[in-house]
Amino acid sequence: MKLNGVPTRSITRTDDGRGARILDQRLLPWEIKWVELRDAATAERAIREMWTRGAPLIGATAAYGLAMALAEDASDGALDAAHNFLLEARPTAVNLRWALNEIATHVRPLPHADRAAAAFVRADAICEEDAAMSHAIGTHGLALLRDLYAQHPDRPLNILTHCNAGWLATVDYGTATAPIYMAHDAGIPVHVWVDETRPRNQGALLTAFELASHGIPHTVIVDNAGGLLMMQGKVDLVIVGTDRVTANGDVCNKIGTYLKALAAKDNAVPFYVALPSTTFDPLTATGADVPIEERSGEEVTHVEGEGGRIRVTGSGAANPAFDVTPARLVTGYITEKGVSERI
Amino acid sequence: MKLNGVPTRSITRTDDGRGARILDQRLLPWEIKWVELRDAATAERAIREMWTRGAPLIGATAAYGLAMALAEDASDGALDAAHNFLLEARPTAVNLRWALNEIATHVRPLPHADRAAAAFVRADAICEEDAAMSHAIGTHGLALLRDLYAQHPDRPLNILTHCNAGWLATVDYGTATAPIYMAHDAGIPVHVWVDETRPRNQGALLTAFELASHGIPHTVIVDNAGGLLMMQGKVDLVIVGTDRVTANGDVCNKIGTYLKALAAKDNAVPFYVALPSTTFDPLTATGADVPIEERSGEEVTHVEGEGGRIRVTGSGAANPAFDVTPARLVTGYITEKGVSERI
Repeated sequence: MKLNGVPTRSITRTDDGRGARILDQRLLPWEIKWVELRDAATAERAIREMWTRGAPLIGATAAYGLAMALAEDASDGALDAAHNFLLEARPTAVNLRWALNEIATHVRPLPHADRAAAAFVRADAICEEDAAMSHAIGTHGLALLRDLYAQHPDRPLNILTHCNAGWLATVDYGTATAPIYMAHDAGIPVHVWVDETRPRNQGALLTAFELASHGIPHTVIVDNAGGLLMMQGKVDLVIVGTDRVTANGDVCNKIGTYLKALAAKDNAVPFYVALPSTTFDPLTATGADVPIEERSGEEVTHVEGEGGRIRVTGSGAANPAFDVTPARLVTGYITEKGVSERI
Repeated sequence: MKLNGVPTRSITRTDDGRGARILDQRLLPWEIKWVELRDAATAERAIREMWTRGAPLIGATAAYGLAMALAEDASDGALDAAHNFLLEARPTAVNLRWALNEIATHVRPLPHADRAAAAFVRADAICEEDAAMSHAIGTHGLALLRDLYAQHPDRPLNILTHCNAGWLATVDYGTATAPIYMAHDAGIPVHVWVDETRPRNQGALLTAFELASHGIPHTVIVDNAGGLLMMQGKVDLVIVGTDRVTANGDVCNKIGTYLKALAAKDNAVPFYVALPSTTFDPLTATGADVPIEERSGEEVTHVEGEGGRIRVTGSGAANPAFDVTPARLVTGYITEKGVSERI
């Protein structure tokens, strides 16, 4: 998608080809700062400290990180160590595991001398595949939005989204946002309700920034507001991304997604989950089997914004990062293969 | 309840008897600052700008405000003008209307010279009645909490609350918090999940402050987290306050309450609404008939905290202040008369 009018991907190789270039998303929308990752330790830190985030982009970053590790030491022991090290950076994201397995499986049969170069090429391919998958998600989602818009062409289509499943969370286009960008570009008037998405405010900071950059009308709301808006008929559909969909269709996504799904069900508002197939985890039976990442309470007690952060409570806090939306609340899954009621 | 160990009410007359003393709650928990209201215009501003908030406390503040107006001009015209002026300060709170009607009805038959003094005495009585009502709510709620605790006496009783329906929102004890204070004082181990309650963070700022002052274990969470906690069995019941309950039992309360009620229903967690009877509005049929206050988007785009405020999005925002929880999601209403399934 466009950044200051220039088509841009959220991750690319560095000019010398030996590292990866990402945005430090912690600084958005206030500052656009590109960071060069040049070793696995920095890639791990970028994932753990959320300089970069979003399931597909985490996978791509980890893939390049493993390639960088192999450039330093291509032995089996180093491969296993770097694989495990990067895998621990974020416990919930299944794409992280998938991308690391892709690289490791690809390079293990190769001579040590060829492993790093092969890993970089495979990481590039992971990025290309991800961009293509997002584009396909957008294409399938566009058909859906076109149908919904046709039901009341007298007003813009109101879409609610939670967190950031945009191009900043993927290599390009985004997952939940891909249909929105394509609908807008196709001339369908859309308006997006952007959940601010406490505690880290990825909606208010990143999704709003993305949509503004692309010229899409949008309004930020607190996470508490979506239920009322649905009750008032001001939401035509909800589209969210996901970090993991389990075998039964349960959706593991940013904390608060479950509440929006409940409200959508209660008000007969369609609730869609957009995901690349790699985010489907058939090896995990249900959402109850997914470990919920518990992050630092400081993300709750302090709010980051323009120019710094501010303390917002005198007490301590708990901070579960994800919740589980039961499959029964999901209207459909939008993948690169199409839109379906079951995963 | 206690403030720095001293029993304190949230509103009292000033020492000279001609004004009212309130906390500037915008500064809590960082600074404890008492403000003296000495005319109706300042009382109106204190309500509108939320120096003071909470349905019962708004009513008490408005009652004193009307008494102050009568001290300046006790004519029928001045009475009507001040009544209307104060009524417009916050559109949703039914207690505001109730308290102003109480004063106006009480003084209208009186000679002009006696009106102001009579109004102050009636406002005092409104405060006494409110404290007594909160105490009675606490007593009835205590019985409920005792029963729930008895079902699993091996661990603390986990209560989730939204916004601030504590003693800072009433004259004393609070509504949603009254049963919690009484349970704690009765030796029942309780732990409170405190929704931070964006956009104004009354939970993180005020409820957490209250509970800490009283020594009650509590944990602040983002508004997104409650659904997951209920799904995980970490919430035994929800208690919230309300600004208005309509004839059919719909609950008008701080934005986001509806989402917690949906999650409670989905997880078979009891959802209780604590209110003084004065908050019941039999003249309004359903929640759909209640005007929803739309407040400034700046409350969303900027977050206030210790020492100032910070901008948290580059985009614009909408800010509906209340939502409606349908009666079908309410397990019971705790009033000064008892606990009942129907209002």
